[in-house]
Amino acid sequence: MSRSRRFLVLAEGNFGPLTSKTANACIRYAPHEVAVVLDSAAAGRTADDVLGFGGGIPVVATFDEAMRFEPTAMLIGIAPAGGQFPHAWRELVVRALTAGLDVWSGLHSLLGDDPEFAAVAAAHGATIRDLRRPPENLDVSYGRVRETDATVILTVGSDCNIGKMTTQLQIQDGVRKLGHRVSFAATGQTGILIEGRGIAVDAVIADFIAGAAEQLTLEAAVDHDIVLVEGQGSIVHPAYSGVTLGLMHGSLPHAMILCAQPSRTTINRNPWVPIPSLSELIRLYEQLAEPLRQSPVIGVALNTYDLSDIEAREAVERAKAETGLPVTDPVRFSTAPLSEAIDAFHRERVEARAALM
Amino acid sequence: MSRSRRFLVLAEGNFGPLTSKTANACIRYAPHEVAVVLDSAAAGRTADDVLGFGGGIPVVATFDEAMRFEPTAMLIGIAPAGGQFPHAWRELVVRALTAGLDVWSGLHSLLGDDPEFAAVAAAHGATIRDLRRPPENLDVSYGRVRETDATVILTVGSDCNIGKMTTQLQIQDGVRKLGHRVSFAATGQTGILIEGRGIAVDAVIADFIAGAAEQLTLEAAVDHDIVLVEGQGSIVHPAYSGVTLGLMHGSLPHAMILCAQPSRTTINRNPWVPIPSLSELIRLYEQLAEPLRQSPVIGVALNTYDLSDIEAREAVERAKAETGLPVTDPVRFSTAPLSEAIDAFHRERVEARAALM
Repeated sequence: MSRSRRFLVLAEGNFGPLTSKTANACIRYAPHEVAVVLDSAAAGRTADDVLGFGGGIPVVATFDEAMRFEPTAMLIGIAPAGGQFPHAWRELVVRALTAGLDVWSGLHSLLGDDPEFAAVAAAHGATIRDLRRPPENLDVSYGRVRETDATVILTVGSDCNIGKMTTQLQIQDGVRKLGHRVSFAATGQTGILIEGRGIAVDAVIADFIAGAAEQLTLEAAVDHDIVLVEGQGSIVHPAYSGVTLGLMHGSLPHAMILCAQPSRTTINRNPWVPIPSLSELIRLYEQLAEPLRQSPVIGVALNTYDLSDIEAREAVERAKAETGLPVTDPVRFSTAPLSEAIDAFHRERVEARAALM
Repeated sequence: MSRSRRFLVLAEGNFGPLTSKTANACIRYAPHEVAVVLDSAAAGRTADDVLGFGGGIPVVATFDEAMRFEPTAMLIGIAPAGGQFPHAWRELVVRALTAGLDVWSGLHSLLGDDPEFAAVAAAHGATIRDLRRPPENLDVSYGRVRETDATVILTVGSDCNIGKMTTQLQIQDGVRKLGHRVSFAATGQTGILIEGRGIAVDAVIADFIAGAAEQLTLEAAVDHDIVLVEGQGSIVHPAYSGVTLGLMHGSLPHAMILCAQPSRTTINRNPWVPIPSLSELIRLYEQLAEPLRQSPVIGVALNTYDLSDIEAREAVERAKAETGLPVTDPVRFSTAPLSEAIDAFHRERVEARAALM
């Protein structure tokens, strides 16, 4: 991210731990780039008050108040199911563009294709950045990830919005400190915002999911030894399982990390679908990878944000006992169990390859 | 299909059993609508000579010869991986539109969005029909197929281009004759061409695969007792597995029919992926369905077009022994084993539901 960007994060009526996914990730990983949050329902509080992180970033009630913090760009701070633009926000986007602010959006409805927004942006020298706009000339997948030597690690999940991006971002530093050239391969709008490149695999034409995953994995592998691919959705999610499997078969991970939330028992917005046990999920993911490339789950990342410290530690111990794998909450506790598991897996792979040569 | 349509099928350099999927399906299921095939490489032969079906439909070498058969529309007869329009065919499409012929296409590259084609069509009163153009306002899936009483049957496969559409079309009559109101839910460009409605689930934005599958299944269920959903791809296909799983989790089949080709040992265009055994595939598909809806595989459809009669019968017997399920080649042999399996499954479901009331 450019150091000079200062976002007005638009989250009107939606700023909260579970409702403003894009805003929250930006505040967690690039807080210095967030000038102010606009949400009249949370006005007067700070990011830390609302989210438990983000320090003193202020939340204000109106566009005029927000402009006093001298933002250079507006970020659409939500990622609703279906990804449509809330009609009630049109006027705020027009005011931002009129004030010369760039507008960044990760929605499926591409704001740059809206004739009014495009005209206002052009008239005022503002740029609209649609993070989910697919690149031109995508192809289907042919398993080309087999051509790179880099070790590919994919996060997979029990559900959506459970920590697949956050886990990779949290463990990236730890893997680097163990001596590896590691890169993060972004596959969703928020990851792309943070990393500055990537492809939103949920926004490409369905036939090209795996092809897009293949392309972004190969790009992230250049000059790196380990690629941490951001996972999407869940193999048991009624709406998004296709994206999950296409991403898996296109990125061809050598190993996977399973992300889960101990307190969640049914799929997000789909209470009719019970979430299988960790060991059942591990079995499903490994079986689905196997016909293309054997890929063990080598660690579990738990999202325990809604548990007490004692409950969180108990959940980690239970998951360890159930799976026999390294387990941690990479936001709350040390990331070492996962970065060390990746380090050990990578070294073993390199040694096995060397022995074959 | 309208009775008055007479297609010039464009398959230049590609007319053959494996290379002109769209042409072949149209010739098999609507031969009276095909006036002529254009392919200079096969000119002078008939559809039956080239495909083994389609009777005396002529194959000619040039556009002018083809026009003597008085076609009313041109059909793009191929469905290549990636679905791009062959540049070499531009001139033929322009000539067709200039002659006032409508142009039907199932490619990913939407011909109606091509400025030159659109202008020529408008100037000559011709219409461009892009079978893969997604409907507006698709939503994500919420498992709404649970709201219909109809029995939903999905074909699933060991690979792409193996008979998932053909199987459903072949058994539809048999199921109807057993006394059921049965409908065919088209999910690909060729199925849509034949059925006159449907959604190409491989052409929608990835997040909406399951939502599109849900919508088309519900539409096909109106006033019907049994819905035969056209499957796509394969759960082990490196490029298309995402579409396969999204279609499965959106259409929520009560039961599945597995389609396979005994002579094929590796995935189409991906010789690095061995095709798992029938029993392994059945296990994978059933396990993936189960978290959302238990869905047994109740029959196997074999595509034996490249085997001798003796070999084909042996393949059917081997598959029966391996799976313990009804097996047939629904093109070569009787469709009864599959239509009777569906009939029995549906009756049992209705009785079980009645017993609960």
